[in-house]
Amino acid sequence: MGAAAFPAPAAHPAPPAPDPRVDARALRERIEKLSTFGRPAGGTFADGVSRIAYSDADIEGRRYVMGLMTAAGLKPGIDPAGNIFARRPGTESGLPPILFGSHIDSVPNGGNFDGDLGSLSALGVIEALHAADVRTRHPLEIVVWAHEEGFAFGRGLACSRIVAGEIAPADMDEVWNGMRRGEAIRRIGGNPDRILEARRPKGAHHCYLELHIEQGGTLERAAVPVGVVEGIVAIDKYDAVVTGFANHAGTTPIAERHDAMLAAAHLTVAVRDAVTRLPGRQVGTVGHIEVTPNSPNVIPGLARLSIELRDLSPRKLVAMMDEIRARAREIAANTQTTIEFTQTMKAAAAGADGDVQRAIERAGQTLGLGTTRLPSGAGHDAQMMAQLGPMGMIFVPSIGGVSHSPKELTRWEDCARGADVLLRTVLEMDRVA
Amino acid sequence: MGAAAFPAPAAHPAPPAPDPRVDARALRERIEKLSTFGRPAGGTFADGVSRIAYSDADIEGRRYVMGLMTAAGLKPGIDPAGNIFARRPGTESGLPPILFGSHIDSVPNGGNFDGDLGSLSALGVIEALHAADVRTRHPLEIVVWAHEEGFAFGRGLACSRIVAGEIAPADMDEVWNGMRRGEAIRRIGGNPDRILEARRPKGAHHCYLELHIEQGGTLERAAVPVGVVEGIVAIDKYDAVVTGFANHAGTTPIAERHDAMLAAAHLTVAVRDAVTRLPGRQVGTVGHIEVTPNSPNVIPGLARLSIELRDLSPRKLVAMMDEIRARAREIAANTQTTIEFTQTMKAAAAGADGDVQRAIERAGQTLGLGTTRLPSGAGHDAQMMAQLGPMGMIFVPSIGGVSHSPKELTRWEDCARGADVLLRTVLEMDRVA
Repeated sequence: MGAAAFPAPAAHPAPPAPDPRVDARALRERIEKLSTFGRPAGGTFADGVSRIAYSDADIEGRRYVMGLMTAAGLKPGIDPAGNIFARRPGTESGLPPILFGSHIDSVPNGGNFDGDLGSLSALGVIEALHAADVRTRHPLEIVVWAHEEGFAFGRGLACSRIVAGEIAPADMDEVWNGMRRGEAIRRIGGNPDRILEARRPKGAHHCYLELHIEQGGTLERAAVPVGVVEGIVAIDKYDAVVTGFANHAGTTPIAERHDAMLAAAHLTVAVRDAVTRLPGRQVGTVGHIEVTPNSPNVIPGLARLSIELRDLSPRKLVAMMDEIRARAREIAANTQTTIEFTQTMKAAAAGADGDVQRAIERAGQTLGLGTTRLPSGAGHDAQMMAQLGPMGMIFVPSIGGVSHSPKELTRWEDCARGADVLLRTVLEMDRVA
Repeated sequence: MGAAAFPAPAAHPAPPAPDPRVDARALRERIEKLSTFGRPAGGTFADGVSRIAYSDADIEGRRYVMGLMTAAGLKPGIDPAGNIFARRPGTESGLPPILFGSHIDSVPNGGNFDGDLGSLSALGVIEALHAADVRTRHPLEIVVWAHEEGFAFGRGLACSRIVAGEIAPADMDEVWNGMRRGEAIRRIGGNPDRILEARRPKGAHHCYLELHIEQGGTLERAAVPVGVVEGIVAIDKYDAVVTGFANHAGTTPIAERHDAMLAAAHLTVAVRDAVTRLPGRQVGTVGHIEVTPNSPNVIPGLARLSIELRDLSPRKLVAMMDEIRARAREIAANTQTTIEFTQTMKAAAAGADGDVQRAIERAGQTLGLGTTRLPSGAGHDAQMMAQLGPMGMIFVPSIGGVSHSPKELTRWEDCARGADVLLRTVLEMDRVA
C-alpha cells in the first residue's frame, strides 16, 4: 500500500529496467580528489578544505570538474555569471530541461561534502544514464553554481541569484579583498560585461533538483537515510556597528570609558537571549566580529559584528530583531556607545514543490530507502531556482550534524544512496508532463 | 614658604641665570613634522598616526629624529637593541649620565604626543643648554627607546626591557607578522647577534627622567599643568583561548552549539564585572579578539582574547583574576566550551624616586607652575629604568584624557611647560651628589 501514498502521474510509462545506478566508487574517488584543491598544506582529507570562491583553489577545482564532464562526453560551458552548465539532449523537442547540481566553493576551513556531493552526483547521474543507454524525454542539464557560500562578494547563493535575476551591472564594481567583483567573475571564465545575459526566465527549466548533505543532525538522530526538503528557511542578516571611543587601557577610568568591545559582548549575549526566549526551531548567530584598533592596551573604539537569524516564519525573524534592537538601546546607554544596524540580506523562505517532494519519496521507495520530510535550515541555490520553476531537494545524513567544518562527514554509502535517489527522481520527474 | 616644602640639596650651587628655556616653536614644528611619518594617506595632523615599531614609518621617523640630533651637534648611536642614544659631555669626570627621553613608536591609529613629546623635548633641552652655554657636572644622555608600545613583539617597553636585562638571545627568534624579531631589530639599525651587550648595569645612570603626556584626565580636571608621577601601576596580561566547535549557523540547533564567540562575549562582560565589583582605581580591558573562522554563517569554533588588568596593588590584580577564572568556569559549562588562560605579561609596580619627585616639584615652583602627585596608569620605559637607578616622570595634561587615539591632544603651551620642567629638573638633579 506504500505506493498508494505517493501516486505517480500516469502520463508517461515508468522508467525502464535494468535500473541505472550511479557509480559509487567513482563518486567517492572524485570527492576525495576534489578535496585536494584547497586542502591545508600537509593535510589529509580529514583536514577539510578552504576553497573560497574565486580563489586559485576554486579555479583548480572547477577545472577538474569540467575535465570530468568533458571526459563523460559533455560540453561544459560557463555562463556570464561564472556558473558551469552542461547539457544532455532529450528525446522530445521543445521540452525544458530538468536542471540539477550544486556548488563546489567552500567556507574557510570547511568540509568535503557541502556542495561537492551534489555537484559530482549530478555528473554521476548523467554517466549512469549513458552507461545504461537510458534516454529521457526532457533534456538534462547539470550545473555547478559559482560562489554559493557568500564568503567573497556580499551575499550567499551569489551566482544562482544572478540567474534568478537579482543583479545589476553596477554590482560588478563591488570590491572584496582588493578584487573587483567583475574581475573575480572574469577570473573564473564569466563575462561581467554581459552579466544580465546570465538571467533565465521563469519556466526555463522543467524542475530544479539538488542533492545535499543535511548539515544538521535530524536524519542521523531519526536513522533515516533520505530527507525530503519541505522548504528552505527565511534568513535575515544584519551588520551591527558599535561606536565607542578608543582610549588608553591604563589611564582611562572605568566610568569614563566608551568601550565598543564591551557593548559588542553584551549585544552578542542579547542575540542569544532573543533567539531562545521564544519556543521553536529558530536560530541566531553572531559569527563575525571586527574590533578596531584590536590592540590589548587600547579600549576598542569600534566594533562591527554580524547577526544572522533563521526561521521558516519571517514574522518570527522580525520579532527577534525587534527584541535585539530594544536590548541594543539599553546596552548603548549603559556603555556610552551608539549601536546601529544595517540589514545586509533578506532571503525569503522557499517552499519545495509538492510534485517534486512526492517524486523523491517514490524514488526512495523504489530503492527501498526510508524518507522523512524536514525543513532546510541552510540556504541553498535551490531557493533561487524556486523563483523560476518547481524545486526539490534531497538530503543525506551528516554525522553528528557537523558542517562548515573540516569534521563534516557523510558515510560513503549514504552518499551513494543520495546519488541514486537523485537519479531516480530525475527519471520520475521526466514522466511528469 | 613654598621653597621650604621642597628643600634643595646644598651640595652644589643653584643653576645659573639667565635661565635657559626650550624653544617652544621648534618643539611644536618638530612634533608636527614627526606626525607625517605614519600619517593616514590624505590625512592631517588631526588624523593621528600609525607608526608601529619596525615599520617603514618608524624607520623614517627615527631617521628624522637622528637628523635633528646631528644638526644639534650630537652624535647619535644605536645600541644593539635598536635604541637611539646621544650624549653631551659633563664637566666632572667619572660621573654617570643623567638619562632622559621617551619613544616615537605608536599604537595603530594612535596620537601625535604619546612618546613624541618626551623624545623631542629631550633634544630641546640639550639645544637650550647649548644655546645658553650652560654646562652640567654630569654627562647628559638622551634616548629614543625602540618599540615601547609592545605592538609588534610580545611585550611593551620591549627595548628598554632589554637594557634592563630582560632578554635572552633566543628571543630574537620570535616571529610577528612574518618577521623574525632579530631581522626587525636589524632593520632599525640594531644588532641581534650582540643583543646582550645592550644591557646596562645598575648605577649606569645618575637618574632617569621622562616627560610624557598623562593620557588620563586627572591633571585637566584638577587644572594643574604639571604632574609628578609617584609610581607606575602593576600590569597583568592574559590570553584567554575559548575552544568551542565550528558548525553551520543555519542547521545547528541552539542546544547543540559550542559557540566560542558567545563564551567570549560572556567572558568580556565578566572581566568588566570583576573590575568594578571592588572599590578603587583599578582598570581592566579586553582590547583584542580574534575569532575563527569569523564568517557570518559559521558558529565560531575558536576565540582568543586579551585581558589586561592594572592597579598599584599587585594583590588586587590577583583577586580580580581569581574572580574572572571562577566566572570562566561557569561560562564554559553553560556554553559547552573550554576556556584556558595564559599569563602573557606581568609588570611589577615601579615607584618613582623621592629625590627626583622633589626635584620636579622644585622645577615647577621655579617656573611658577603648580604640580600634583599622581600614579601612572600607563606603563612607561621609566619603569624599566627604575631597575637601574633613581627614576622620575613629568606628566602634562591630556585634553579629555584621550590617548592611543588620533584625538590625543595636549595644548602647545603645556608641551612647552613640560619641556621647561624637564630642563629644570635635569639641572636640579645635576646638583644632587
